[in-house]
Amino acid sequence: MDECPVKYALGILQGRWKFQILWELAHAESVRFNELQRRVEGISSLMLSKTLKELEADGLVSRHQFNEIPPRVEYSLSELGAELKDVLRGLGEWGEKAQAYARVRSL
Amino acid sequence: MDECPVKYALGILQGRWKFQILWELAHAESVRFNELQRRVEGISSLMLSKTLKELEADGLVSRHQFNEIPPRVEYSLSELGAELKDVLRGLGEWGEKAQAYARVRSL
Repeated sequence: MDECPVKYALGILQGRWKFQILWELAHAESVRFNELQRRVEGISSLMLSKTLKELEADGLVSRHQFNEIPPRVEYSLSELGAELKDVLRGLGEWGEKAQAYARVRSL
Repeated sequence: MDECPVKYALGILQGRWKFQILWELAHAESVRFNELQRRVEGISSLMLSKTLKELEADGLVSRHQFNEIPPRVEYSLSELGAELKDVLRGLGEWGEKAQAYARVRSL
């Protein structure tokens, strides 16, 4: 039996760094590994590599290898990853309302 | 400084039971505590009570107490909670595509 698609989607987004990496990729055509590590503050290269592999396996991120010397590897959002942007925009708009509620409540 | 609204929204949805409870409340006008516990399979009354309090504090769930004998308490989605339904529908539609991708990939 299939898992609930909402849970599946939430599962893909969970994890300490995933959302931040997707956020950076959403704001660029493609990003080199080192540049991505600089932008995602505090992530180790091991953890970045591991998380990118997971995102690639889930179909959200594409890896482009250029056979230059030295070899260059760039990452970008896949079509599926790009479609997530609209969903996250909706989630962000709702999140703003929820934050406003929390602010009023704490007054 | 405000937290990123998407992260805030994801944070609200995280936790073992939250999403399931919201799901049940989204499919009824209002639900009594005992009925909710029956529908959310496997949850203890302590955990249900704790999670409902968190959802209430975050403004997603309304608690209605009827001063009858014995007292009756019902829970329903608040306006903010109801607005989350559309967002979760979008997330679910995306999740279906992601699941289809994963299925094709595993062939």
